[in-house]
Amino acid sequence: MRNLVAHKSCFLVLLLLLLLFTSQFSSATKKTFNRDQPCKRFVLYFHDILFGGNDVANATSAAVANETGLGNFKFGKLFVFDDPMTKDKNYLSPAVARAQGFYFYDMKNDYNAWFAYSLVFNSTEHKGTLNIMGADIMAAQTRDLSIVGGTGDFFMARGIATFETDLFQGAKYFRIKMDIKLYECY
Amino acid sequence: MRNLVAHKSCFLVLLLLLLLFTSQFSSATKKTFNRDQPCKRFVLYFHDILFGGNDVANATSAAVANETGLGNFKFGKLFVFDDPMTKDKNYLSPAVARAQGFYFYDMKNDYNAWFAYSLVFNSTEHKGTLNIMGADIMAAQTRDLSIVGGTGDFFMARGIATFETDLFQGAKYFRIKMDIKLYECY
Amino acid sequence: MRNLVAHKSCFLVLLLLLLLFTSQFSSATKKTFNRDQPCKRFVLYFHDILFGGNDVANATSAAVANETGLGNFKFGKLFVFDDPMTKDKNYLSPAVARAQGFYFYDMKNDYNAWFAYSLVFNSTEHKGTLNIMGADIMAAQTRDLSIVGGTGDFFMARGIATFETDLFQGAKYFRIKMDIKLYECY
Repeated sequence: MRNLVAHKSCFLVLLLLLLLFTSQFSSATKKTFNRDQPCKRFVLYFHDILFGGNDVANATSAAVANETGLGNFKFGKLFVFDDPMTKDKNYLSPAVARAQGFYFYDMKNDYNAWFAYSLVFNSTEHKGTLNIMGADIMAAQTRDLSIVGGTGDFFMARGIATFETDLFQGAKYFRIKMDIKLYECY
Repeated sequence: MRNLVAHKSCFLVLLLLLLLFTSQFSSATKKTFNRDQPCKRFVLYFHDILFGGNDVANATSAAVANETGLGNFKFGKLFVFDDPMTKDKNYLSPAVARAQGFYFYDMKNDYNAWFAYSLVFNSTEHKGTLNIMGADIMAAQTRDLSIVGGTGDFFMARGIATFETDLFQGAKYFRIKMDIKLYECY
Repeated sequence: MRNLVAHKSCFLVLLLLLLLFTSQFSSATKKTFNRDQPCKRFVLYFHDILFGGNDVANATSAAVANETGLGNFKFGKLFVFDDPMTKDKNYLSPAVARAQGFYFYDMKNDYNAWFAYSLVFNSTEHKGTLNIMGADIMAAQTRDLSIVGGTGDFFMARGIATFETDLFQGAKYFRIKMDIKLYECY
């Protein structure tokens, strides 16, 4: 009989521990992200239509500083953009977000760019922003930029934005597939 | 014999728990922030006095790239600033921090801006910096930017900076109320 | 008697578990970084060789916007760079990374700068990027910028980059010692 009581109390303590443990679990801390399992993910297409001087209606970006002459790949040329983000490749599709920010070319012996911008969502689906910066290493098939913060529906988010050039029509128009992966969601 | 079995099962459960615990511990992840309870918060006013050409003594910001002609809202015009941050609305009040960075206009059919800057604190109260970036969606009553990092007293901080235009005197002077909320404090 | 011993050991294990658990628990939700113990650290030298107009072969950075005349310290002058990062002070040493980004001067009564850039690693040792932004308060012996994100080998990293001017040869060449300290490694 005493044995039974002892065992019962042993299991009770175990049960208690288990409960405690489970409740704490959700606030534990050492994060290890699984790169293949973002907590949120969506693929959007970025459309950049460069202002030529008299196509105000269509253009979505404009050069604000000229190339510097350091090499032949527009080193230093800086662009400000307010570009539509769409779910498919058609730039006339409804924009699910705007990409607002800037990029510049920064290599003297090849094309290479650097971006900082916000994805601004304002639809029934999503309200809020994601803030992104990083090197757009154009020679690579895909390249990763950092999602360094978010607001609204993306409050305090962090993650990775993977760029893949989908179309590059010289200075006139280019399209980038952006694979948005959040690893911190709140 | 029954005792032995009981003990064995007891230890088995313990082992299981231990395993569970160990595995969870390393992969636990979910932090939950309460949006209404930042770990640190303060409201400061940002004063931007645009350089006109011969008011060096007063001016705190200057245009470094001209508007591009894409629309009528100064698209692409870029400004560098070293602006005082004060506790009240008077720009002559003692500056408790400097805001150092840049902004540019980025919309063709309305005023809209994008900011990246550091709040630089160097007083007895606070030493260190907060680094901030994001879209300043001027059409919205308030808008959130990301505090993406901090140094010194704000070591490794993250949070949200909520902007609210307090006064806009054309190109000459504007004042933004900045509600600085940190959700990660160390 | 054997039963008693068995139970005692059972409870001892439970107690141990509880202690272990409790100690982990308290470090759970609240992360505390030890500033002296980054999870990764390396010191690199940043070399900026300003383009003068006909030294394309050597130059690694170029001015893309002129100073504004607000004071005598190049306020607003903006530079884009693709600078080598080396392990020692010799800018001809093999580059272990490239620093790609921009900086500008932003003070009217002294030299002061603001940086945003990516460290791009592409060697057998490291592949990936670190994204950095913040105030380069040149009057300070050392100053901290925020490492706000990382990709590749530095997936989701955060930390501090401590700058120390190592050499400043006017507009022609300068060298900064960058002490890269990561406090979040995954």
